[in-house]
Amino acid sequence: MRIARFSIDGNVAFGAVEGDGPDGLVLDIIKGIPYADFELSGTKVPLSKVRLLPPVLPNKVVGIGRNYAEHAAELGNEVPDVPVAFFKPTTSVIGSGDAIEYPSFSEELHHEAELAVVIGRMCREVPRERVKDVIFGYTCANDVTARDAQKREKQWARAKGFDTSCPLGPWVETDLDPRDLAIQATVNGEQRQLGRTSEMIRSIEDLVVHITEAMTLLPGDVILTGTPAGVGPLHVGDEVAVTIEGIGTLTNKVIKRG
Amino acid sequence: MRIARFSIDGNVAFGAVEGDGPDGLVLDIIKGIPYADFELSGTKVPLSKVRLLPPVLPNKVVGIGRNYAEHAAELGNEVPDVPVAFFKPTTSVIGSGDAIEYPSFSEELHHEAELAVVIGRMCREVPRERVKDVIFGYTCANDVTARDAQKREKQWARAKGFDTSCPLGPWVETDLDPRDLAIQATVNGEQRQLGRTSEMIRSIEDLVVHITEAMTLLPGDVILTGTPAGVGPLHVGDEVAVTIEGIGTLTNKVIKRG
Repeated sequence: MRIARFSIDGNVAFGAVEGDGPDGLVLDIIKGIPYADFELSGTKVPLSKVRLLPPVLPNKVVGIGRNYAEHAAELGNEVPDVPVAFFKPTTSVIGSGDAIEYPSFSEELHHEAELAVVIGRMCREVPRERVKDVIFGYTCANDVTARDAQKREKQWARAKGFDTSCPLGPWVETDLDPRDLAIQATVNGEQRQLGRTSEMIRSIEDLVVHITEAMTLLPGDVILTGTPAGVGPLHVGDEVAVTIEGIGTLTNKVIKRG
Repeated sequence: MRIARFSIDGNVAFGAVEGDGPDGLVLDIIKGIPYADFELSGTKVPLSKVRLLPPVLPNKVVGIGRNYAEHAAELGNEVPDVPVAFFKPTTSVIGSGDAIEYPSFSEELHHEAELAVVIGRMCREVPRERVKDVIFGYTCANDVTARDAQKREKQWARAKGFDTSCPLGPWVETDLDPRDLAIQATVNGEQRQLGRTSEMIRSIEDLVVHITEAMTLLPGDVILTGTPAGVGPLHVGDEVAVTIEGIGTLTNKVIKRG
């Protein structure tokens, strides 16, 4: 099932995305909360009439650096012995269609297309064989990075944590085998990144075990699983799109911070 | 005013800490929310009868590394050109009296006594002269760090973000000049760290400007301002106490994670 979060006429709701009637995609409004018991209301609104919101409300977003060998190499980095884990704050999260605001402290913003894992249950110290039980679904992410600040500042709180640096969406797909999906980024329609999730150095199981060895994850928390090769600059006016096979396309324009 | 958050008989409240009647410190229960308009109820409970909770409910905790020259030197690090900013997640926050749980992935847990700045207003791109307007108050923090994981893992999400790694408390002091306060850590009553906030390389104004250049801070968000020299190991069974002049003492026992 594809679960979107959206606003219409000032109301916020979750909805199941259903395809193609005469109106294109429609949302069947969800009664209740997708992470617990819920049912579909049967009340449907066309996707074209709503504003998509970030499909999850994370307590935290945990990113993983250098999880595709070709991407590590393109930035001149070694493949690390242990996963490189960092946080993006909730204030950085935006949805599909929202604007990425180019911050004043950077002159080198980069796109990073990533598969995002959405956690469904409160969990810590998850054994490898139980990882599938704590995953709610998957969405597309753009781990937007101020590459110049990342190099200068050693820890990445500003470089990867500025407002609007974490586009997520367009919705969460709950029925998906994530192990070998095409993942791509385009800028103004031109392909920049293309990879497959099968190229990840550490699997999703490895990452969930590694992160929850240290910390509790909560329903709605997000793990970004790293980006394939082909990262590159974003400029004001660009439209960047992350597409993952079986999920959909996350699209954001880049604007000057107002 | 000293504002604590506490639970008594299963209820959670904020209270103003008032000193010394026949019962020692008492809490005057706050009506409303301390970050907005509030008044004191006049209903008082002895501090000894309550369980202190973390005095704030942060959306994010932003830490700053290497902000005291002697501490940078003791770990063999240069004083950085720009502040080293990192996040601790909300799942790491505990209050005074709560236990620090020694995680399984580390064999080298260190204490780091720090002055914590509590933000009072939603803010971004704060000009230097307005920094005082966005600060609600100050509390004590222990930026507990898995030093071995910190060295191994490059980014510090696990090393400084594991559950219970962010003791905050015992309360927030709203009337305080933070510029030259004694800050110390003891372990089992023995002094380990002793410094003065006047030794900070970057001032609180510098840090708020630097962080909010990138991201929005929300009421209750916390900035950890770095630790003075003298960091050292914690072992299961230790009691670690962080005392800051004009605020009070944050005390936590170290236990094995159960």
